[in-house]
Amino acid sequence: MEIEKKRVAVIKLNDLCLQVFDKLGIPVAEARIITEVLLAADLRGVDSHGIARLGFYANGLRTGVMKPHVDPVVVSETTVTALIDAGGGMGHPVSYRAMQMAIAKAVQHGLGLVTVRNSNHFGIAGYYAMMALESGCIGMTMTNSAIFVVPTFARNAMLGTNPIAVAAPAGKERPYVLDMATSIIPFGKVETYDRLGKPLPLGWATDETGRSTQDAARVIKNAERGKKPEGGLLPVGGEGELMGGHKGYGLGLLVDVLCGVLPGALYSDQVYPHDEAGHALPSGIGHIFGAIRVDAFRPLAEFKASMDDLQQRLKNAPRAEGAHLHPRREGVRGSRET
Amino acid sequence: MEIEKKRVAVIKLNDLCLQVFDKLGIPVAEARIITEVLLAADLRGVDSHGIARLGFYANGLRTGVMKPHVDPVVVSETTVTALIDAGGGMGHPVSYRAMQMAIAKAVQHGLGLVTVRNSNHFGIAGYYAMMALESGCIGMTMTNSAIFVVPTFARNAMLGTNPIAVAAPAGKERPYVLDMATSIIPFGKVETYDRLGKPLPLGWATDETGRSTQDAARVIKNAERGKKPEGGLLPVGGEGELMGGHKGYGLGLLVDVLCGVLPGALYSDQVYPHDEAGHALPSGIGHIFGAIRVDAFRPLAEFKASMDDLQQRLKNAPRAEGAHLHPRREGVRGSRET
Repeated sequence: MEIEKKRVAVIKLNDLCLQVFDKLGIPVAEARIITEVLLAADLRGVDSHGIARLGFYANGLRTGVMKPHVDPVVVSETTVTALIDAGGGMGHPVSYRAMQMAIAKAVQHGLGLVTVRNSNHFGIAGYYAMMALESGCIGMTMTNSAIFVVPTFARNAMLGTNPIAVAAPAGKERPYVLDMATSIIPFGKVETYDRLGKPLPLGWATDETGRSTQDAARVIKNAERGKKPEGGLLPVGGEGELMGGHKGYGLGLLVDVLCGVLPGALYSDQVYPHDEAGHALPSGIGHIFGAIRVDAFRPLAEFKASMDDLQQRLKNAPRAEGAHLHPRREGVRGSRET
Repeated sequence: MEIEKKRVAVIKLNDLCLQVFDKLGIPVAEARIITEVLLAADLRGVDSHGIARLGFYANGLRTGVMKPHVDPVVVSETTVTALIDAGGGMGHPVSYRAMQMAIAKAVQHGLGLVTVRNSNHFGIAGYYAMMALESGCIGMTMTNSAIFVVPTFARNAMLGTNPIAVAAPAGKERPYVLDMATSIIPFGKVETYDRLGKPLPLGWATDETGRSTQDAARVIKNAERGKKPEGGLLPVGGEGELMGGHKGYGLGLLVDVLCGVLPGALYSDQVYPHDEAGHALPSGIGHIFGAIRVDAFRPLAEFKASMDDLQQRLKNAPRAEGAHLHPRREGVRGSRET
């Protein structure tokens, strides 16, 4: 009964999305991909990247920052690599196609790596990484994004939450899926704390002085679009170097190198630019999609058996005293929220 | 004068290493590679992975856990991938060769990815990633390693410090080099605190209950080789999920999937096994080496110019109030110590 209710809700949301995207001028084949990616986020429990984002996309389409239909151009291609220019279109359809290309190259040659420039927000990174699983491949996806993250020892945000997603197939166990922002928390969590009137834990975000703050409203105000952001979210590992914050910063920067610099997209504080009147211009962000065919290295069945064994070792490991797992976080998974 | 002194010291250390490795039965060509990698660590300031490790290697060679000379076997190969069995030999020469293969494949086809199994400790990961730079490639290296790291919410170490290294070329600026353990700190830092009699900062390591501890001696005792380790180092992001510790855990696990499971090496608590009498057996660890040829995506000169610009943006960004950089950590670099 619970499952039936959920099924009906998903069908209704699916239809709603398709209608909205149709009104916004998006061709039905592309609308189906966008909808699929958004609903996958909700079904995985990553509410911040699901259909709650419809308004964000609708706004981008209305202001012309996102184009409703573009034929992406393959700028360059080798047997195992490609660069695609997304022409400022929606991020999801071009990303779906780029990941398909990476997988096809990996199936044929062992590896595939496709970068995309001139794109837009593509939903959850994990969706694309997981596309590789059914082809017996390890999938990898990264994207740069709107700047919210403060480099270690810096005062202002200079990087996006720049997620890294990797998926690897398993046998009886669920696949390994890592889908993590390189910041401690997504920006949406600051907004949630603000709505609830709760103080932020120290170490999540900084104010305009560059020091850790508990004031969610201030962090939101300092990050307003259309002006230079002040303060922002801290990278994984937190403030300074004591708990490894410089490593989270290094990882976020890696994503900017691979998604911004490598495809010739915008990077660092160039992304999501505004004109002099404060109007938003196309975001200019980039992505990278990779696939590794497992049996180029080792028979897939053996790999899957080892993945099962690895997961069982971790699941059966004794728990720390006082530790209580969130049920959705049971097992070997990384963050559920980018 | 200072430089001349340093040059003489390096030459002396170089000769010392070559003599030691000669006595231990390592052929000179391989001894040269090992020495080069060890000295590179010292010259980069990563003392924990430099010639201070001579004793560790000598011990491994004397007990037969590391073999002084092995001809590694290429088990499988495609245009862009390869799997090498290191046969229990020293980690450095096979890693040097594997990275050379990855680079040669990338130069010819755009990408190269080579995994190694049945290997040993290879020194600093960053050395191999940086080998890609002079060929206009982005280099990537990971390895799994002796288990010291406690998964989020677990009581005992189940993963190595599993470093990730990536290097990308720049123009006038120094290359981007990330070389980071996926734990907050390397185990050597616990030993340093113990020697100095200093309490560990809470959040770096756990004791046998799985709770954060300040007692360095206890952490060392609990990690003694030849028995099941209890407690251990915490992943980047620290204890629990509050500061993103589950993300550090997810990254460490990623390294185990790519270096342990993919090449068919040992993984998780299988590595560095002991026989029933408590004698060390070959470590059985694995590595991965990747190269991406930049101009498969974008002209190298353009990429380098953007890397310079990215670094300058970060270096010129206003500093947080009260932040003082360690001079060796100036700029965009990640951790200097794995």
